[in-house]
Amino acid sequence: MRFTQFFIRTQKEWPRDEESANARFLHRGGFIEKIGAGVYAFLPLGLRVLDRINRVIREEMNAIGASELLLPALIPKKYWEATGRWNVPVLYKSADSSGQEYGLGFTHEEVLTPILARRIQSFRDLPQALYQIQTKFRDEPRARFGLIRGKEFVMKDLYSFHADIKDLERFYWVVSDAYKKIFSRLGLPVTVVEAAGGDFTKEFTHEFQVLTPVGEDTIFYCAKCDFAQNKEVAKVSSGDGCPKCQKGKIEESNGIEVGNIFRLGTKFSEAANLVYKDSSGKEQLVVMGSYGIGPSRAMGAIVELNHDDAGIRWPKEAAPFEAHLVALPGGEEQADAAYEHFTEHGFDILYDDRADATPGEKLADADLIGIGWRIVASAKTALCGRLEIKARDSRDAELLTPAESADRIRTSFHVR
Amino acid sequence: MRFTQFFIRTQKEWPRDEESANARFLHRGGFIEKIGAGVYAFLPLGLRVLDRINRVIREEMNAIGASELLLPALIPKKYWEATGRWNVPVLYKSADSSGQEYGLGFTHEEVLTPILARRIQSFRDLPQALYQIQTKFRDEPRARFGLIRGKEFVMKDLYSFHADIKDLERFYWVVSDAYKKIFSRLGLPVTVVEAAGGDFTKEFTHEFQVLTPVGEDTIFYCAKCDFAQNKEVAKVSSGDGCPKCQKGKIEESNGIEVGNIFRLGTKFSEAANLVYKDSSGKEQLVVMGSYGIGPSRAMGAIVELNHDDAGIRWPKEAAPFEAHLVALPGGEEQADAAYEHFTEHGFDILYDDRADATPGEKLADADLIGIGWRIVASAKTALCGRLEIKARDSRDAELLTPAESADRIRTSFHVR
Repeated sequence: MRFTQFFIRTQKEWPRDEESANARFLHRGGFIEKIGAGVYAFLPLGLRVLDRINRVIREEMNAIGASELLLPALIPKKYWEATGRWNVPVLYKSADSSGQEYGLGFTHEEVLTPILARRIQSFRDLPQALYQIQTKFRDEPRARFGLIRGKEFVMKDLYSFHADIKDLERFYWVVSDAYKKIFSRLGLPVTVVEAAGGDFTKEFTHEFQVLTPVGEDTIFYCAKCDFAQNKEVAKVSSGDGCPKCQKGKIEESNGIEVGNIFRLGTKFSEAANLVYKDSSGKEQLVVMGSYGIGPSRAMGAIVELNHDDAGIRWPKEAAPFEAHLVALPGGEEQADAAYEHFTEHGFDILYDDRADATPGEKLADADLIGIGWRIVASAKTALCGRLEIKARDSRDAELLTPAESADRIRTSFHVR
Repeated sequence: MRFTQFFIRTQKEWPRDEESANARFLHRGGFIEKIGAGVYAFLPLGLRVLDRINRVIREEMNAIGASELLLPALIPKKYWEATGRWNVPVLYKSADSSGQEYGLGFTHEEVLTPILARRIQSFRDLPQALYQIQTKFRDEPRARFGLIRGKEFVMKDLYSFHADIKDLERFYWVVSDAYKKIFSRLGLPVTVVEAAGGDFTKEFTHEFQVLTPVGEDTIFYCAKCDFAQNKEVAKVSSGDGCPKCQKGKIEESNGIEVGNIFRLGTKFSEAANLVYKDSSGKEQLVVMGSYGIGPSRAMGAIVELNHDDAGIRWPKEAAPFEAHLVALPGGEEQADAAYEHFTEHGFDILYDDRADATPGEKLADADLIGIGWRIVASAKTALCGRLEIKARDSRDAELLTPAESADRIRTSFHVR
């Protein structure tokens, strides 16, 4: 994509009303624009990142046999009343000229469970796993921290339906493994943390937490084993011995929750009369699980963890493009030819072909936008017939032919 | 995709509360589920169709140089007040615990224009074209007719920004041509119809109307030339001579509006102070256009135009899969091998591998779901080593090898 044909406008000034690193860098890089507290527009560069994140999520959801659908945001009042959630504080409400009242979906058990109730008959119809990537609304009094805590945000919500708790338990850990793969691909090191069960279960739920000083949650974890609990449920504190491995010491960290998994049990199947006939013909309640990842929140968390003073450092699979090609004075023709070369070979390249930007502006924008590979064509590189290629997180550049550069980029995407 | 691994549940009964062909067939085929008046869920099969339609739209939007972004639905009151649209009847309103009021976007000039105002400085920054595919909300008292007129629906909205009316005029017809391509690819024969300008312009706007007896609009058109007007603006009536070509007679038809294009002029740039400096350094108002297509409405219109008693007949580029492979008794192994063959060669196939459905149910479901090509493997076909391949809109089947079948399907997708 040519810079001049894509709507990119980096900003020289930091935003006045944003404190978080994710909001500040995403604003300056031209990824997002704040429309109101907790409400953001995704500009073309930002939508590309969101699409890349969604692609990773879809691949891993499809790999565990889940099917994608799309549920509405405008949910009639009766659905919320059926489960007693019409008056939860986070629900945005609206009404239309016919008098019909709606709650804007912050989660979709209420809509999906009746759909399943009309389609599940026997144990042969189970298990099922359905997910969507959809816009959620949440009256969030603490909206702040950029994309991490919004009033409108993108959510991947997966729901699973099982004949019994044993099968839910099996799938619960399948999803947990899929989540670990997703966050690993997105460059987010996560700790799986035991947390409160909410209304639905007395067992722990599990949160996928990115441990970072800027997170809003407090996590106690063992430095030696995988024991980790959210402060809400923890009976240990910093410096205690680990109750699980008996060897490590408990440490404390802040965390950003980027995913969670819930055993819902039968609460929602009771409300919707979601039953099936077991092998002896007896009616049983379907057992459910639900599982969330916020792609827009993940985008914010990625930036919190991956930036330096000059800008963002996108992990490969979340970057808006695979490489950022910059034409400097005297390198324009070489850059044009290289862009043709990369495009013909199927690479998705951002090509800074601006005639009215200085070399300094172009190189600063490349660091700010933060794509993994920077390729420079200049008078110097044109002379030797090679391109200058540099990884965003490295200080060292190499001079490579276009074909060698293509190999270098391709290889980096195949290493996981 | 294997039928047994994808959440497909066709319904034997017609829905009780739906009159339109699109809602009735899409319900029975398991594409959509009604959640409330004018509010639908897209089940996995329906989301696939929506994605295919969106893909065609994206390709043609990108081809005319437009960049995709994503704007929020939750739009603070001040944006609507700035253009005097806070009290338009179709606006859904909500408020949050902080007292902030919002209107749910039914269109996005209010959000996008200020974003451009902060980024456009000179004539060199123009023209710009930005679009999104996003969920819209509209308090529609006449919600009915399935996906054609909803309260929540998917919209592709494109906005263009120009230095002067002449450049808007140029781009206006570029978009018109792109729209014709989109509807042609989606199997929707459209008539470009002159219509009222709304609040923004004294000139005609143009609607892309599918002429069909079930449409809600009334169109007068010339049988000999391209003259066509919406009843709202028409000064002719049925039987009159054509005022344009002077040869044809005016005929009348109902129509479904699947797209529209508007010259907005400077109304919104005035409200947002969206100006640029011309070549002499003088400030000028940016001239705008806006252009809409409803992908979910297009999905409904496609079904209205493309069905028979047995089910839907999807045009190739809107079909949820490229072919529908059916295993009948004795053909299971052949079908398994054929599915492998097609999948390895990159085809996107729905494979009805159900063990518990009768041949009659499987063939009826194939007609109901309505994918362009049906491929049957049975005891008979297994014996001769060929597959029975039939187009959805044909009565005649052929016996072809898997490789020949693949060629047949591939060729059909390359013919436009």
